[in-house]
Parts: sequence; structure tokens; C-alpha cells
Amino acid sequence: MTETTHPATDAQSPTDPAFDAIADSDTLATALDALAVLVDECVVRVEPDGLAVDAMDPATVGMVSLSLGADAFDAYDAPDAGLRLGIPLDRLRDVVGIADAGQPVRLAFDAESRMLHVRVGELAYTLACIDPDAVRSPPDRIDLAEQYTASATLDGAGFARAVDAADMVADHLALGTDADALYVRADGDTDSVEVDFPGEDCAAIDPGPAHSLFSLQYLASVADALPSDRDVDLRFGEEAPIEAGFDIAEGDGHVTFVVSPRMTVN
Amino acid sequence: MTETTHPATDAQSPTDPAFDAIADSDTLATALDALAVLVDECVVRVEPDGLAVDAMDPATVGMVSLSLGADAFDAYDAPDAGLRLGIPLDRLRDVVGIADAGQPVRLAFDAESRMLHVRVGELAYTLACIDPDAVRSPPDRIDLAEQYTASATLDGAGFARAVDAADMVADHLALGTDADALYVRADGDTDSVEVDFPGEDCAAIDPGPAHSLFSLQYLASVADALPSDRDVDLRFGEEAPIEAGFDIAEGDGHVTFVVSPRMTVN
Amino acid sequence: MTETTHPATDAQSPTDPAFDAIADSDTLATALDALAVLVDECVVRVEPDGLAVDAMDPATVGMVSLSLGADAFDAYDAPDAGLRLGIPLDRLRDVVGIADAGQPVRLAFDAESRMLHVRVGELAYTLACIDPDAVRSPPDRIDLAEQYTASATLDGAGFARAVDAADMVADHLALGTDADALYVRADGDTDSVEVDFPGEDCAAIDPGPAHSLFSLQYLASVADALPSDRDVDLRFGEEAPIEAGFDIAEGDGHVTFVVSPRMTVN
Repeated sequence: MTETTHPATDAQSPTDPAFDAIADSDTLATALDALAVLVDECVVRVEPDGLAVDAMDPATVGMVSLSLGADAFDAYDAPDAGLRLGIPLDRLRDVVGIADAGQPVRLAFDAESRMLHVRVGELAYTLACIDPDAVRSPPDRIDLAEQYTASATLDGAGFARAVDAADMVADHLALGTDADALYVRADGDTDSVEVDFPGEDCAAIDPGPAHSLFSLQYLASVADALPSDRDVDLRFGEEAPIEAGFDIAEGDGHVTFVVSPRMTVN
Repeated sequence: MTETTHPATDAQSPTDPAFDAIADSDTLATALDALAVLVDECVVRVEPDGLAVDAMDPATVGMVSLSLGADAFDAYDAPDAGLRLGIPLDRLRDVVGIADAGQPVRLAFDAESRMLHVRVGELAYTLACIDPDAVRSPPDRIDLAEQYTASATLDGAGFARAVDAADMVADHLALGTDADALYVRADGDTDSVEVDFPGEDCAAIDPGPAHSLFSLQYLASVADALPSDRDVDLRFGEEAPIEAGFDIAEGDGHVTFVVSPRMTVN
Repeated sequence: MTETTHPATDAQSPTDPAFDAIADSDTLATALDALAVLVDECVVRVEPDGLAVDAMDPATVGMVSLSLGADAFDAYDAPDAGLRLGIPLDRLRDVVGIADAGQPVRLAFDAESRMLHVRVGELAYTLACIDPDAVRSPPDRIDLAEQYTASATLDGAGFARAVDAADMVADHLALGTDADALYVRADGDTDSVEVDFPGEDCAAIDPGPAHSLFSLQYLASVADALPSDRDVDLRFGEEAPIEAGFDIAEGDGHVTFVVSPRMTVN
């Protein structure tokens, strides 16, 4: 058999990968799905102790941060600090989607060719990474902590249901605290929605003064990506962003969404 | 907190509702789905002993009547006779759709504001009702009983399957009795369908002389809304409408569809 | 009741059918689904010992052959050799789709009227067959056996997954043998896919010299129609077609797909 009948391929695993890890498909799918809520591509920072991503949507209204510790993987080897991969999310999601639930997926990055080798069972997929400098990156991290004057920890499904109901009647909602309850309100042209989460319905609540308006275009997408079977930590304030954080990978990873408030028109 | 940061809302339950009831979401969804087969909006007549609706589709070919007795509700309070609510069906179905299967849904109507307050768990949805006088209402009830010369009681799924098969080959079907069987026939340009339900396959049959043509545009929609696990009572005749009736809410409610016959061209 | 109120119908079963058989709906659906991958209509050859179909897609790139022995049926009666039925596949699939899983479906062909009478429970569907001479037929069978220089028997789902992954990155794939493995490779503009099925992962393999390119437009459709829970027999060669064969009806039937290779551009 000659080279003309047997095409050269770069699908083989690299001999000296800069990053080489194995995770089950569910863990990877959860992480990729969260990122894909807001962006099509992102820069994954690979460190010896795990991966991290910060990404901002093109309109700079939403932000997502993801960390996935080395313990979230079945095997993890990234000897050098500061490696950055530019990942086209849809293509990587498609490959991971080929795997059966819980099947191990191997990721190995060849720094020279900028190829990410994805192995699912007998299948070897070679993904051309993007130049990380060509991916729009979020501004240097602004510490939003001081803008958050209230917080609540509650069931992700309950919060998502409130946001979905608001989305039925209006294009934005108000969120804040009233007495010791978290409230979500939306007033449409004809109908309105109000949901109160009193302290006793929350796993935790710190009801400082808070009231902000949010575009449902963003908040509904974020709410749909919240875990339905676990608690979500919300932080919010007076005309401040809202942050929704939750663990993934059984606590070895974490996702945080931030949505900027909409201007209040008075 | 001032009124400017905390918008006024009418989502709170009314203090003196003209109608206040609690039903499980499945009962409400079944009733609303039946009505939505033919109309987008309807007038619900609220009486001390239950609700009733009569509605006719815009082309005046199909009619649906619904009754839902007070016993169909977990709680029911409508002190005054003659209350009429103009209901936008899609919006109310959306809200009821938020509820989990079997979850209690509370409906409370504030007559002054014409607002129907719908409560699902912690969620309060305020639905602006329509002016009932602006909803096209069916003509005064014509007694169709004398037009019905035959009847049959049979499995809803079997009848729906016959109508769906007819819908594959033609745009109208013939329905009537032949000897002691109910028949459904459709002749298309190339293919034809015939289904006979002999007496022994029916829970009951009274095979008087009967033969009528029906538009499948209407009959197929109605057939799809029949219960698949229960018997349906059909009444029909010679160039007469067909009536399909069945119980809902475990017998505390009833739905009747009527579809007018198509002109027979000879 | 007169003829004007009771339309004549040809939905009754023919009195002296040229072909009369009963099969369960799953067997018929599997057979029809395989044919529908490549063609809209086909000629079914009815012989005393079973049915056979050979059909070729309009672009003459794909071919499907089906045999369904008399033993695949619960009852089978075709006294004369050489009967040919022109079958509109979509319409017959729709009727068979009405049946519940595993429900018996009776097929009876009336040669005089060219009507195929399909009976599902109480439902009689009369299907107008096509003139078999008006159905484009494949050329006289070419014996492809000598073009096949290699073969492999492997899990249908695994092969389909390899083809689907190739379809993500390119519009054609290369398939052949390398050492003692079957390989599938696709090189797209940015990404590439390679899947090796070594001998130990195959139920059987005869790795002669083989390498061919195939259009994914055809191979992906065929791969999706392979059984996911059974082995598939592949035969292939050097710039040769690929054949995928598998049993249906618990061994009383067989389906073979053939896809022509794409020209290799050097």
C-alpha cells in the first residue's frame, strides 16, 4: 500500500502532548454546554492543577467562568503552566456527543500542530484549535463582589421556572429582595408574573437591599442552563449584575454565570 | 425601598375574589386542551356548582361544550350566579403548563380588575381576561338531538386511528351505519380506507339509518383530542352533524364536540 | 339504504388474491425502512417462497437488495411465480405505521385491479399499486463479488458511529484495510476523523488490500439504516463499492446495501 492510496492523517495521538487528560463524557458535556450558553468559542487555560475558562458574550452582557480541577478527570497531565487552547465549542460538543453516557473521552493537545486529539473508544477525532489570541477575551476581571448586596441559595429548577414564566409575559424582569424574600417580577402588556422565594424556601438567604432589571434574552438562557437537581448560589444587588454559581463534576468543578443589569428607565 | 425601585404589582391574590378554586394541573390541562382544538378564546360561565363553556370555531363548522363540576376541584367557591370570564386559551395553557403533573393550581378572579390570578406553587401569574362580550359566542343552543338517528360507544383510540387513516388518503370521510356496524370510509385519488366497527367491537351501538360526509380538517383535530384510554359516545345521522362526548375529571366533567357535515355533492 | 348514501368501496379484501400474506408490523416496517433509504418506489417480486426487491437510487450511486422468505410471515400464499408489484413506499409505510408494535398486518393483492389491500385490525386500506414497468429498475445484476478484496463483520452501531463522525468533518471518507484492521478516515478543511477496527474488535475480518473513497451523502444514510444491535457484514476493495449486509426477520430475511465508490482525484 502506498501513500497515494493511504492518505496521511494526523488523527494519531501526539507523541509528546502538552496536555493529556481523560474525563467521562458527561463531565465534559456539562462543562461545554455551560460555556455554549454565551459563546461560540473560548480560550481554555490549562494549568497543572486543572482547566479554567472566562468568556463574555459578544454584546458583553453575559459572562461565564468555569473551573474544572484535575480531580474531575480520570487522568490529568499538564506539566507546564500557562498553556492556552482556543476551542471552537460546537465542534468539540459534537465530538463529545458521539460518546455514550459516562464513556471516557481522552483529550490530548499537540502544541506544535495546535491540534486537539479527541479519542472516544476506537474513534480518533483531530480538532484544529483556534489561535487563542484571535478569540475575544473578557476584560481583566473586575471584582464585582462589592456590588453584591444580597444573596440566596435555592433550587435551580424553581428559579428557572420563575424566569421562564417571566419570559412568557415580558422581555425583562425585576429581581430583588423584599422583607426576607427573594422576588422575581415581570410586567407585560397584559399579564404579569410574580414569584417570591421566602427565606424558608431557600437553603440560605441574605436579604440585603437589592433591586435590578434584567433582559430575559440573557437571563432565560442562563436559567435554562442551571442544574435542575441542585442548589444554585445567587448574588445580586441594587442595579447590579446577578451571579449564579453552581458546582459541577461532583464538586471538582464550578460554573459561574454573570448577567449585567438592564438600565432602569425612570 | 421606595416605589420607584419596587414596582407596583397586581400579582397578589385578590382580597375578595368573585371566583376562587383549586384544581390539579392535569384536570385543567385536559379541559383547556379540548377547548383549544377549536378556538383561541372562549367565555367561561362560572356558576356556584361549576364551570361551563360553549364555543364554536370561526368557520362555524365545529363546536365544543365543556362542563366541569365543583366536585372536579379540590376547592371551589363561586358565590354568585352568572359570572362570565373571557379567557385567552393559549396564555392560560402556558401558565398551567408550568405546573408539574398533578400539582394544585389556584384560580382566583378579581371582578373589578378583570384579572385572573393563577397560582402554581410559589408562582403568581396575573392573566388579563378578555371582555366576554368581545368573544364571538355560538348561536343559542340548537337542539341537535332529533338529527341524531344512530349512536355508538367505542374506544376513543380506535376511532381516532380510523380518522387518521382516512386523513392519509382524502380530505373528507363518510361515516354511517351499515347493518349493525359503524363504518368510516374515505376515497382518495388513488387509495381508500374503510374501517368497520361491528356491534361486538363497540361498548354499545344503536345502528339507525345514518350516512354523512365530514371534512377531515375538522374531524381529524377532534379525533386527536379524544381520550385514548376511554370510551367515547358518538351520535350521528343522515347528513347530520356528528357528536363525540366523553367524561373528564373522573366523571365530574364532560366534553362534547360537534362537527357539522359537509354538503353531499350528487 | 341506497347506493347514493352508501358509496361503493374497493376496500374489501379481494376474493381471489394473487398474493395473500400476514406479517407482524415490525418485520414489514424494518423491510420498508431499508428500501426507503434509497428509493421512493420499487418493484416487489412475489414468488411462492418469498419476496425480493432490488432497487437503485436515481443517481445510481446506491443499491439495496431485500429478500423476505415465506417463513418471515405468519401466513404466506403466492401460488404463481413472477408476480411483480409496483409499491409507493411512503404510502405503504404510513399504513404499516398505523399498526401497533408487533400487530399482524395482512397484505392481499388483487391482480385485476392492481390494488394491494392492507388490513390492520379493523382497518382496511386499499393501496393503488404503480405499474411495475414504470418503476426505474436497476441494471441486470452485475456480479460485484470479484471487486471485493476484503471483508469484515462488525457491530452495526460502531460502524455507524464512525461514519457519522466522518460526516461531521467532511463530505467523503476513505475506507480500507491497514495491517489487519479496517479503517475509516475523513479529512475536512480543519478537522479529521480516524477510526480503526482492529481484528480483535471485529467478529471476523479478512483484510485484503483495500482502499476506496465514498460520498458521505450516501454512506451516512446507509449507515443510519444499519441495525444497532447486530453484526453487519462489510465487503469492500480497491476503488471498489462497499457492500453492507445484515439479516432481518430473525434470519428469514436479508438486506444488502451497496454504495459505489467516489472517483479518486490524484
